[in-house]
Amino acid sequence: MRITVWNEYVHETRGDAVVLGHYPDGIHAAIARGLAGLLPDAEIGTATLQEREHGLTEAVLASTDVLLWWGHIAHDQVADEVVERVYRHVQAGMGLLVLHSGHYSKIFQKLLGSTASLLWRNDAERELVWTIDHTHPITQGVPDPIVIPQQEMYGEPFDIPVPDELLFVSSFTGGEVFRSGVTYRRGLGRIFYFSPGDQEYPVYHQPEIQRVLANGVRWAAPTQPRRNQTAIHRPEQGWFAS
Amino acid sequence: MRITVWNEYVHETRGDAVVLGHYPDGIHAAIARGLAGLLPDAEIGTATLQEREHGLTEAVLASTDVLLWWGHIAHDQVADEVVERVYRHVQAGMGLLVLHSGHYSKIFQKLLGSTASLLWRNDAERELVWTIDHTHPITQGVPDPIVIPQQEMYGEPFDIPVPDELLFVSSFTGGEVFRSGVTYRRGLGRIFYFSPGDQEYPVYHQPEIQRVLANGVRWAAPTQPRRNQTAIHRPEQGWFAS
Amino acid sequence: MRITVWNEYVHETRGDAVVLGHYPDGIHAAIARGLAGLLPDAEIGTATLQEREHGLTEAVLASTDVLLWWGHIAHDQVADEVVERVYRHVQAGMGLLVLHSGHYSKIFQKLLGSTASLLWRNDAERELVWTIDHTHPITQGVPDPIVIPQQEMYGEPFDIPVPDELLFVSSFTGGEVFRSGVTYRRGLGRIFYFSPGDQEYPVYHQPEIQRVLANGVRWAAPTQPRRNQTAIHRPEQGWFAS
Amino acid sequence: MRITVWNEYVHETRGDAVVLGHYPDGIHAAIARGLAGLLPDAEIGTATLQEREHGLTEAVLASTDVLLWWGHIAHDQVADEVVERVYRHVQAGMGLLVLHSGHYSKIFQKLLGSTASLLWRNDAERELVWTIDHTHPITQGVPDPIVIPQQEMYGEPFDIPVPDELLFVSSFTGGEVFRSGVTYRRGLGRIFYFSPGDQEYPVYHQPEIQRVLANGVRWAAPTQPRRNQTAIHRPEQGWFAS
Repeated sequence: MRITVWNEYVHETRGDAVVLGHYPDGIHAAIARGLAGLLPDAEIGTATLQEREHGLTEAVLASTDVLLWWGHIAHDQVADEVVERVYRHVQAGMGLLVLHSGHYSKIFQKLLGSTASLLWRNDAERELVWTIDHTHPITQGVPDPIVIPQQEMYGEPFDIPVPDELLFVSSFTGGEVFRSGVTYRRGLGRIFYFSPGDQEYPVYHQPEIQRVLANGVRWAAPTQPRRNQTAIHRPEQGWFAS
Repeated sequence: MRITVWNEYVHETRGDAVVLGHYPDGIHAAIARGLAGLLPDAEIGTATLQEREHGLTEAVLASTDVLLWWGHIAHDQVADEVVERVYRHVQAGMGLLVLHSGHYSKIFQKLLGSTASLLWRNDAERELVWTIDHTHPITQGVPDPIVIPQQEMYGEPFDIPVPDELLFVSSFTGGEVFRSGVTYRRGLGRIFYFSPGDQEYPVYHQPEIQRVLANGVRWAAPTQPRRNQTAIHRPEQGWFAS
Repeated sequence: MRITVWNEYVHETRGDAVVLGHYPDGIHAAIARGLAGLLPDAEIGTATLQEREHGLTEAVLASTDVLLWWGHIAHDQVADEVVERVYRHVQAGMGLLVLHSGHYSKIFQKLLGSTASLLWRNDAERELVWTIDHTHPITQGVPDPIVIPQQEMYGEPFDIPVPDELLFVSSFTGGEVFRSGVTYRRGLGRIFYFSPGDQEYPVYHQPEIQRVLANGVRWAAPTQPRRNQTAIHRPEQGWFAS
Repeated sequence: MRITVWNEYVHETRGDAVVLGHYPDGIHAAIARGLAGLLPDAEIGTATLQEREHGLTEAVLASTDVLLWWGHIAHDQVADEVVERVYRHVQAGMGLLVLHSGHYSKIFQKLLGSTASLLWRNDAERELVWTIDHTHPITQGVPDPIVIPQQEMYGEPFDIPVPDELLFVSSFTGGEVFRSGVTYRRGLGRIFYFSPGDQEYPVYHQPEIQRVLANGVRWAAPTQPRRNQTAIHRPEQGWFAS
């Protein structure tokens, strides 16, 4: 299992004490450490916006089983060429976890065909993450609910396609609700969106959140060699007969 | 459009002042009045547990387009023969709205193949009913959220099959969430479960709730004559050629 | 109901006798006539690639309830700006029917986030269009199966997201199968893809096919004024209280 | 992994030469042998209608991770008490594979809330089993299509609820199509229905079919201890706080 954690890495380099208090090495480093503890056999790399090709070269993606994506205030700085490359790899089988404010990323919008807009409010509200599908691999070993003491609120309407699977629904102190864990398939790739996590709160340090991410990575990992789904386009009648 | 509102009609006949304050003529009468105001062309009848065959004779069901079901503490007094009859009519195309504690009714469990169990608590909590599918006929003209000042709490895990459509999700003061509006198809029949509504609160008097029920009735109404879905069982090869 | 039928209108202008035999005025004209017979109250317009802005100006789209899209060999000649405009109107509530080889159109790929690739073969095979969902408005009044004497074969794997609703599955003489009628929701817009129909066969003259298209138009028509789904982005706590 | 293969075992004991030619020890023995080759670490037992409690005692079910069910002409001889017991174990997490004519079994109808009726014809037609979901664990390593030289035809309309996942669609020589591989979740249990397989054809000897069944067993196996889903029914407000 080869994992790449991508982070725009902008909040953390601006000297904000709150952000640096939680994520001194960047959100990507915290996520990678959490995964490393639960997936000891995985090779875990990181990549950021500032690197050449945002660290997502063809070589990196070709050797990535599952990519995690964290972005927030620099979505428009991500090169369309890189978005296209990630899109192509997801279609061919690479797993993708989109995290928190990544809902507004170019790659998520492109894969969903939706704006992914939502309500939001940053009032340090309690978030309760309730499990809806208790049989799914991603929800195994996860307390129900997960209690996040302080969080940014994300609320419905969440403008996404009907999910293939609805795994989690969150409520917030203010009463809003949100489909906080949803899955999609695109081409041969599996996509898991999970909303908890923000630069101002230590959400990625909670073991329950790390458990969800590790489960998500395992679930999204491809089970077959990467390939374009439809190699044969125009078969003769009876081509399947032996 | 011919509608039958069924109610076990037990709480209301026990002299409880709270229940009688809200529903002096029975919950069925309040629901029927709400529908009448919004569906002026509909013929609306009622039926209760105490009537012969619970008021759901073959003749009544055969001339019912949409049946609404309210039950709570007398589920086990509903005759299996009547449950079987309702089941058969739903399969053949009759619409069915299952309301609030009707989740535990024999007919709902039989149609879903599930226990429909859930968390609950009666603490007069505020319920917010959020719209998830803004394009669905049932959610048109409904405020988002619907605010119900005091309600019984129903919470996840709600042990139902994955809905065909998830229309509403509720949150409660205590933080629990609930899939409060879901649809299913069984045979040629359409089923809508809507959880708001209780004997101790005046929920069925709220215009927004009445709007949801009226929309639900219109959506669940059959668009074709009632029939067993598979009349032809064993056709010859090429039977469809003209 | 205001309908716009869009056609790239390329095959028909090249002098191919087969194509002109079936569609002397263009495929769009045949489709429009079929709809006119079944939706007498609708205003039906047409638009083609060759017109300014492909006939899909802001004014045209703003006054279109449902757009039908037929394209095949000129997908890459459709301006990205027009695709973006159609996309925006679908998100805001305009209905969209994508027909036959329109599966490879820019707008369909953009809305689905998928390649929409498939198997195909043009051997004049018989297509049988089987109804899967007998309760859906789009399948009402449609024979099961629809028999299309000669058709291009479209086969699985069809690289699309899991449909919101699977309405039709086709089989072909050669044994291939295809999800020939599927629905999606994007934003406030409803999308129906229906595969039967080709420039070389008189499919759009079959009354059963016209019935499906008319049903599809009725189903996809918006039920509310066009709007961006999420006008309120950042509400205060308790904003919903009266 | 502990597997129990259940078979009504009636056709095979009537001396029909065709049936005995394919399944001299019973269909259950052939299925068990196929699974044993692909799941070498599994403990595989069998049970039949003729045994006490049909071989499905509380003890047997309590120690069964995945149950396979084959029945055809003796559905009504299965005791309701045993059906209830299987139902309860599925709700609590036991996996269930329903095979071929098991679509009409009491347990499948009870779990689905549907008649599961269909078209059928026994003309030794070729069945092609096409993969619809290429990312699902059950379809891995399976040729697309699987070619079954001779089979009973099962055709739409197949009166089942909308599946959670549509994995396979079959076509037959006569042109009919059928959703031949579908999944459902009920309670904590996973259900996979797979239609290929009949007493008159050697379908269960095909390695591709055995592969699907082995994949199905692995997919349906529970990932947590068996339990009733909702132990806590009436929690106090704030019960989830640590």
